[in-house]
Amino acid sequence: MATPPTPEGIMQLGFGYWGSKTLLSAVELGLFTALATGPHDAEALTQRLGLHPRGARDFFDALVALGMLQRDGTRYRNTPETDLYLDRAKPSYIGGMLEMANARQYGLWGALTAALRTGRTQNEIVGAEDVFTALYRDPERLRSFLAGMTGRSMGTTIAIAQQFPWRNYQTFVDIGTAQGGLPVQVALAHGHLSGGGFDLPAVGPIFEDYVRSFGLSQRVRFYPGDFFHDPLPAADVLIMGQILHNWNLEEKIRLLTKAYEALAPGGALIVFEALIDDDRSQHVFGLLMSLHMLLGTQDGFDYTGADCCGWLHDVGFREARVEHLVGPDTMVVGIK
Amino acid sequence: MATPPTPEGIMQLGFGYWGSKTLLSAVELGLFTALATGPHDAEALTQRLGLHPRGARDFFDALVALGMLQRDGTRYRNTPETDLYLDRAKPSYIGGMLEMANARQYGLWGALTAALRTGRTQNEIVGAEDVFTALYRDPERLRSFLAGMTGRSMGTTIAIAQQFPWRNYQTFVDIGTAQGGLPVQVALAHGHLSGGGFDLPAVGPIFEDYVRSFGLSQRVRFYPGDFFHDPLPAADVLIMGQILHNWNLEEKIRLLTKAYEALAPGGALIVFEALIDDDRSQHVFGLLMSLHMLLGTQDGFDYTGADCCGWLHDVGFREARVEHLVGPDTMVVGIK
Repeated sequence: MATPPTPEGIMQLGFGYWGSKTLLSAVELGLFTALATGPHDAEALTQRLGLHPRGARDFFDALVALGMLQRDGTRYRNTPETDLYLDRAKPSYIGGMLEMANARQYGLWGALTAALRTGRTQNEIVGAEDVFTALYRDPERLRSFLAGMTGRSMGTTIAIAQQFPWRNYQTFVDIGTAQGGLPVQVALAHGHLSGGGFDLPAVGPIFEDYVRSFGLSQRVRFYPGDFFHDPLPAADVLIMGQILHNWNLEEKIRLLTKAYEALAPGGALIVFEALIDDDRSQHVFGLLMSLHMLLGTQDGFDYTGADCCGWLHDVGFREARVEHLVGPDTMVVGIK
Repeated sequence: MATPPTPEGIMQLGFGYWGSKTLLSAVELGLFTALATGPHDAEALTQRLGLHPRGARDFFDALVALGMLQRDGTRYRNTPETDLYLDRAKPSYIGGMLEMANARQYGLWGALTAALRTGRTQNEIVGAEDVFTALYRDPERLRSFLAGMTGRSMGTTIAIAQQFPWRNYQTFVDIGTAQGGLPVQVALAHGHLSGGGFDLPAVGPIFEDYVRSFGLSQRVRFYPGDFFHDPLPAADVLIMGQILHNWNLEEKIRLLTKAYEALAPGGALIVFEALIDDDRSQHVFGLLMSLHMLLGTQDGFDYTGADCCGWLHDVGFREARVEHLVGPDTMVVGIK
């Protein structure tokens, strides 16, 4: 006899936004940053975060049950993970992405049904676009946001520095580099390489400070530009991480064509992203990321490794292969 | 050497609202009801649900990856679970709760940080209270909502009908009974019992239709009333399920006192709820439910089995015990 179906899986997924929003509020309130200075009891933590006593203990204990805090007797402390990744004072902080999720994207996802019905981004409708405009207007917030992206991508970046056969190449440029997390890890691991990162001019000073803090300014430079309006820098290896999914098919092909043109013969393009699996049935994060593009971009969408290999061949690359990195991230390598 | 901490657990929880909202939109759009009539390919399903093609395939495939749909070749079909619990045409439908979550509570949870800072319900602030007012004004919607609660609680209801020693008692009344799911299951399982359900007068016709559909009108009747303003009906066993957490401590004690007074000597009160574990560190759902009460009620909160046993003793019950039912639900039994 088959086990009768139970509603538990449905209920857990359907009410999954409760735990998710609880973590996002904890990041917003700086809870993990406060606890990184040492354990606090409920009263001290409530005071420190400026909370009302009514919900505070349930909030802290829910985070214990969710595995985001530990409690010894009456004192709360961070787990090893939340201490490393959610303390704003550490360079490994990845909370910038969760702050954006909390301030902007949680509300945007509230409009998912409308986006599915119309096929249109809901950015204007939920009045959320201002967040990015404000971000680029405020250098300090931009710096903190870009640092968050570096933290989030660190595992992937290190995997690319280790897995790709860098010994066969001399120069590289990371397209849409943000703070420069990828160029720094690649240059740290491979002393023979020189190159840099390409991004909008506003990003330049933040990139250069970051690179300087690793003593890499001699080998890693900033290339200012807009990848749709300016030519891409020439190099043996070009990298496009979390870029293509923001754009429609015609724009994707345009960017891949520009990369092909900028590469030396024998050069390589590395595309990385939370790719959808070729069967489109397993990689939850890649598929949901594509819905995120529906909600937040004009006509962006995510894609499979097979999709990307096909486009690479179409624009002239003679070889293309797919290689898993870490977590949800996979790279596609095209050889000119 | 200890394994180095990875950010995966944080990222999965922080972005958990993506998959959650995807399921809620699927319920809103009637996707599982459409597929209950037979498998559809992506194009037919897109048309049937009135979706735009841009996001439709990602949406369906994300639901496959989330385990909520299956896909054979190009055709999508329900899983055994979603077919049983999320098809509006089946009496086992539990989507009413998810429809409420989608229409009202997802937005309410967006105000969690404000609720934590102020200790105040965010119902008025997000303009969400109208949903309940509208519900009670529209008998058809009220019927569908109450049916959803019956579906959601069915496992718990059956466990109470089986686990409690009903043979020792003759009469029972379920306080805040809604559609009457509990009285029906108890009466079906125990032919010697008679009793009924107590709730607001508007619920009466819905309760009576439901009880009649099981041929139980002779043994199960409706008691109209307001549990704060009217005395509770006398019985050997009274039940309060998912009631106490809506109220503050003084109100909880008042309700328990009224139950004590209405019971015969030797009578039993059954309280059931998604109780918090006594250590307040394990039962995620009970702890998050308490934050849900923060967001949605004036001063309600959830509690542990030990809390409830303490209150039962305080109001005069001579014995109290805690017994797990199914999933997140636990009952506390007090003997007068």
